[in-house]
Amino acid sequence: MPRRADAERNRDKILTAARAALAEQPGASMAEIARRAGVGMATLYRNFPGRRELLEALYTDEVDLVVSAATATAGAPPGDAFLSWLHAFIAFSTGKRAIASELLSRPDADPSMFNTNRDRVLASGRPLLAAAQAAGDIRTDLTLEQILDTIIALARIHGDATYLAPILQVAFDGLRPPA
Amino acid sequence: MPRRADAERNRDKILTAARAALAEQPGASMAEIARRAGVGMATLYRNFPGRRELLEALYTDEVDLVVSAATATAGAPPGDAFLSWLHAFIAFSTGKRAIASELLSRPDADPSMFNTNRDRVLASGRPLLAAAQAAGDIRTDLTLEQILDTIIALARIHGDATYLAPILQVAFDGLRPPA
Repeated sequence: MPRRADAERNRDKILTAARAALAEQPGASMAEIARRAGVGMATLYRNFPGRRELLEALYTDEVDLVVSAATATAGAPPGDAFLSWLHAFIAFSTGKRAIASELLSRPDADPSMFNTNRDRVLASGRPLLAAAQAAGDIRTDLTLEQILDTIIALARIHGDATYLAPILQVAFDGLRPPA
Repeated sequence: MPRRADAERNRDKILTAARAALAEQPGASMAEIARRAGVGMATLYRNFPGRRELLEALYTDEVDLVVSAATATAGAPPGDAFLSWLHAFIAFSTGKRAIASELLSRPDADPSMFNTNRDRVLASGRPLLAAAQAAGDIRTDLTLEQILDTIIALARIHGDATYLAPILQVAFDGLRPPA
């Protein structure tokens, strides 16, 4: 049996390799992921009993980044803290797309995984939004759900990062209280 | 033969009835549209040789409203004129959806009709945006295409008018030059 640190290192290597492989080629095979991670198939399946478990771990990892972005902003002015969390949410919203679409197309799709993670995202952003609205940094006529729907819709617009950047900036500026 | 004025009145009655019928029930039949318009099938088909021609006329009518909104704003401050045109575009973007989706799903779909109408929309808004940007009323880091993509994406968000109103307001406020 590998020591605990080795096991964790393998798990991380697999997740990193899987993220890169799926970003390049949605649907990349388990064999390709093992090859990239430099581990055997036995190690891959010891860590993730199946493809679905691997995809769910990747998805949950992306959500972890959003949740931890909420605490990374401690000390910043409330409006900046919220908008910086929103930037993490945009990265998540874009990065998870291929993973989510494959997971949702599976016959064994587990919607509760998405609901749990959606709840975690909302719970991490809600106190930041409340503080930013209380400080007068963010307009008060939108809920967190409305703000996230806005960001999700804009991040889906077809175009490269240069095309999308000013579009997202419109939303960021528009979230400030009207003069 | 009916007199010219009667013929135009029939055409208008059919278009109005078709718009109402399709808004209530996408895919409403030609017979249902004739019944609502209070005209016979012969009159319906004399005006529109087929369903596709009727749908295209409805679509073009919606575009006409956007184009005429561009001139209706003469005299208003340039920023307000552009945003008021953008409101007409939102109504178009929402109203045409069922018609466009049926037209696009037809085996005899004519993409040039969409391209021509898209060009007419862009041509009607472009001078308004240029004037509003020159006057410092609208930010200058977005093209008309980027602004319309923003509006289209937001207008598609799932929710009723009350849910969408503040979301669209974020975009409208965000289009003003940053302070």
